[in-house]
Amino acid sequence: MEQSFLAYLRGRTRGLPQVDVGIGDDAAVYAVGDSEVKQVACTDQIIDGVDFLSESQPLASIGYKSIAINLSDIAAMGARPTAALVTLALPQDNATEIAGEVYEGILEACQEYGVAIAGGDLSTYDGVLSISVTMLGTVTGPWLRSAAVEGDAVFVSGSLGGSILGRHLRPVPRIRLAEQLRKHVDVHAAIDVSDGFSLDLDRMLAASRVGIEMDIERIPISQAANELAQTTGRSPLQHAWSDGEDFELIFTVSADDAQRLADLPPDALETQVTRIGTVVGRTGLWKRNPGSKLERVFPQGYVHGETDVEATVSP
Amino acid sequence: MEQSFLAYLRGRTRGLPQVDVGIGDDAAVYAVGDSEVKQVACTDQIIDGVDFLSESQPLASIGYKSIAINLSDIAAMGARPTAALVTLALPQDNATEIAGEVYEGILEACQEYGVAIAGGDLSTYDGVLSISVTMLGTVTGPWLRSAAVEGDAVFVSGSLGGSILGRHLRPVPRIRLAEQLRKHVDVHAAIDVSDGFSLDLDRMLAASRVGIEMDIERIPISQAANELAQTTGRSPLQHAWSDGEDFELIFTVSADDAQRLADLPPDALETQVTRIGTVVGRTGLWKRNPGSKLERVFPQGYVHGETDVEATVSP
Repeated sequence: MEQSFLAYLRGRTRGLPQVDVGIGDDAAVYAVGDSEVKQVACTDQIIDGVDFLSESQPLASIGYKSIAINLSDIAAMGARPTAALVTLALPQDNATEIAGEVYEGILEACQEYGVAIAGGDLSTYDGVLSISVTMLGTVTGPWLRSAAVEGDAVFVSGSLGGSILGRHLRPVPRIRLAEQLRKHVDVHAAIDVSDGFSLDLDRMLAASRVGIEMDIERIPISQAANELAQTTGRSPLQHAWSDGEDFELIFTVSADDAQRLADLPPDALETQVTRIGTVVGRTGLWKRNPGSKLERVFPQGYVHGETDVEATVSP
Repeated sequence: MEQSFLAYLRGRTRGLPQVDVGIGDDAAVYAVGDSEVKQVACTDQIIDGVDFLSESQPLASIGYKSIAINLSDIAAMGARPTAALVTLALPQDNATEIAGEVYEGILEACQEYGVAIAGGDLSTYDGVLSISVTMLGTVTGPWLRSAAVEGDAVFVSGSLGGSILGRHLRPVPRIRLAEQLRKHVDVHAAIDVSDGFSLDLDRMLAASRVGIEMDIERIPISQAANELAQTTGRSPLQHAWSDGEDFELIFTVSADDAQRLADLPPDALETQVTRIGTVVGRTGLWKRNPGSKLERVFPQGYVHGETDVEATVSP
């Protein structure tokens, strides 16, 4: 439902002048006063039984994750986080204990990334644990999904796939990486990998009205994707292509800046960034085969409110 | 639970330099860049069966209310609203219909007060409707709960009590009044009436470490409080004293500014403001009796996570 309802909302909510970037990017961007520094805000909720399982996952990790996934959206805007507002809906039984454990993880993540808890709300009710976080930040020159241009080099950070084996509970939002990238290059477009590498890549390119010629074999496959493939019958590449919750960054830079990234000393960035293709004018994802033949491949991942879409053409 | 848990949180979350006002006021205040204009943020969630009843109340009104109660907090800071982030947790059955109806009211309220919808999140789950709103705004010189000083005149807007008869679903957040007051006077401290007039008054005074000498008979009693008293066996004054969800403003100004308010033409403010007492150094609520004898009276209202506290001494 989410995508179509967001489209409806976008139609209904006319932009007000104070909001530079509204619904549809990783976070909203708006001006405060006449400062060049813009305000960034995003929100994400996670619910027991849908986004996590309180019976089998530590509550502190769930709290940590509720902050980290919002920080990932802030990183995808090239922004710095400042403050969070945290709202909990708590089951009546053991509400205080649950809140305390969840907050251990929330406070740990906030401390790690220099985020203040600016407010929040707590309710108890006859229902399951739900955590809703609004993350605020600041940015000068936000990275938009729509800013990729033909000729850009496309990069992805870290390695992809298999986060379900554990990394999804303690993701590393790429706040530090975003700050490091800002020092060396001018990032054009960016998005974070939350619903699946290929799906989020496709969203960024669609927002920019461009496509990509990909070197599929350069997609960085995580160790976890290799492990997972041994039990699922799917290939490590398929996991890297479509698994959700990697929380890595996909971003584009000019060809010159791509060279600059290649020339950086190994410790300049907190994690590797891998060039996986080049932006082209023709929309869609295009796989470069031997002999330079291009073949269209299709995004795959987790679409909210739908069951997983199986790829008709796998990469 | 809420008050004690907030106290725990306040202890755990050390203030970061970017946040001027953190947990404990109606909204957080923080700086963006070096602008004199500060950013304001607050959040409030409402849950079916706890804060509203979807079976008997129109979903559009519930949506309207979810925005209005947050605007009331923004008004209590003397701030102007800019943008909202809206998160819905939706029952699986009829999720899209429910979201659509709730959003009718959300959009109506946002349009009325010039608020942009900057983002949000939607989930469906096996549970009841829950709406979590984060409201952002801007302010220069926020009105804090802690800024009342001895000698200040204490005012309340509108009239109090009996909102349960209907007004609670379509409250008037005092955004316009706050803006009008700014034109004429220098408001010191302010709070909005959400949990009960006397309880919120007491909270503001406690935050300022002062008390009040009250003219109880001047408390403006609403028509609804009079009607409700006919069926509840409680007096209209008791309803005005303790009923929740009036969403009026309590605020303090200097004696000179109190005179300025008294001298305003009738249409200068969107609603009446009534002087109900004077700030004194001795903490607590003090009722001025004939012959100037003072008697202590006690706050009463809705305390989150507890049943209503019955006043041991009624006003």
